[in-house]
Amino acid sequence: MGETGRDFTACLILIGNEILSGRTQDANLQHIAVTLNGWGVRLREVRVIPDIEKTIVDTVNECRAAFDYVFTTGGIGPTHDDITAASIAKAFGVDLVKHQESFEAMAARYPDPGDFNDARQKMCFIPDGAEAIDNSVSIAPGFQIGNVFVLAGVPSIMRAMLGTLRHRVVGGAPVQSRTVNVFLGEGAVAEGLSEVQDRYPETDIGSYPFYREGVFGTSLVLRDTDTGRLDRALGDVEAMVRSLGTEPQRVDT
Amino acid sequence: MGETGRDFTACLILIGNEILSGRTQDANLQHIAVTLNGWGVRLREVRVIPDIEKTIVDTVNECRAAFDYVFTTGGIGPTHDDITAASIAKAFGVDLVKHQESFEAMAARYPDPGDFNDARQKMCFIPDGAEAIDNSVSIAPGFQIGNVFVLAGVPSIMRAMLGTLRHRVVGGAPVQSRTVNVFLGEGAVAEGLSEVQDRYPETDIGSYPFYREGVFGTSLVLRDTDTGRLDRALGDVEAMVRSLGTEPQRVDT
Repeated sequence: MGETGRDFTACLILIGNEILSGRTQDANLQHIAVTLNGWGVRLREVRVIPDIEKTIVDTVNECRAAFDYVFTTGGIGPTHDDITAASIAKAFGVDLVKHQESFEAMAARYPDPGDFNDARQKMCFIPDGAEAIDNSVSIAPGFQIGNVFVLAGVPSIMRAMLGTLRHRVVGGAPVQSRTVNVFLGEGAVAEGLSEVQDRYPETDIGSYPFYREGVFGTSLVLRDTDTGRLDRALGDVEAMVRSLGTEPQRVDT
Repeated sequence: MGETGRDFTACLILIGNEILSGRTQDANLQHIAVTLNGWGVRLREVRVIPDIEKTIVDTVNECRAAFDYVFTTGGIGPTHDDITAASIAKAFGVDLVKHQESFEAMAARYPDPGDFNDARQKMCFIPDGAEAIDNSVSIAPGFQIGNVFVLAGVPSIMRAMLGTLRHRVVGGAPVQSRTVNVFLGEGAVAEGLSEVQDRYPETDIGSYPFYREGVFGTSLVLRDTDTGRLDRALGDVEAMVRSLGTEPQRVDT
């Protein structure tokens, strides 16, 4: 979609048993999706995978070939189940090497040598050839190697890392969206909506049922990089809804 | 893991542009993960993919070969962007056929022929050879074909559908979990935790940092199908924490 050059695509890989077990509700996907969209990059796929080296290696290698960018979260801490850095080094066929700047910063943070133990030192090793991703919250870095960006799983640290990456990511035109709520079932608007979609094949038109405060309705969401075309499609959707005898309600998005 | 026979594995495929765009926060993954775990099935991977036929076909075919069970959510409504049933029929190389029981029920729900339109009729078509999955909330069925279970994306309907499937899913022993919170950083417990993990290779031991009400800490989570072994590993973890001069706090899970 979009007339101004090609799409830029991304895949997000959430690494960690805690989401797959149901222990933890994901708190990173939506923030990353919205941030990337603002940078003109479409999140095209998400995978949630366990802390298993072969799975991480295979998934990263498959996804970095298929998408412009890959982002991972999780598994870069000090404990035995934090195997993301080692697995990504393996995916790229390189060794882990000490990131001197982080190592020195962490040595200063833990002046007692007993506290700056092997586990904490492990967090200062990144794949050979990778560029560190700093953050304002913790000393341990994320890193970028090739088109793969490796971020922390803790949401506050992930957000701090992602916030530093704008200049490293080339994107296209950001997707704009328009939403109207309709107090009709999806089945009532489906035919008219499909006709609008046929007239605007480059606009992504979605339909999402909702039930709030005892009322059934449908959210109609239009997305496009071209705001002129987007607003023309929106006008057609609103006219279609009025032709069904009800008033569409614009929602700020 | 587990001594009692093999593991049963599942992959969940969330189908829909609305999660990838960041418009909607996923509300299905955690419920499905916890439910499957209770049935003795491990959720091993999750994929979030867009409403694109080729992507759905390829993903379903890859995942149904790799896992014992595949669950999908989303894309079975009446609108033009609801292409899950048609895509899964294509993945299995079969046609869509009318599910007579749903068709009659929906015809009765919409006695005016103008209301029982093509869009609503579409929801009563499932792949040839599939078995319908009823639910108590809506008339439109999900379906099972082979090892693939196709559920609605609306959480209340998804849950109603999933709740009917217990007898169709063969699982192993459910995984039990134990959690202790420790008011130490991950770096302080990493070495001792790794030693316990080495002694209990079949127990899945995870470490998750938290920050609550101004206090940093680490949740240590142990998971195993064998409760005797699980509690022995838990005892070792608690002893390890006490050896660091702090009292572990058991959390009910």
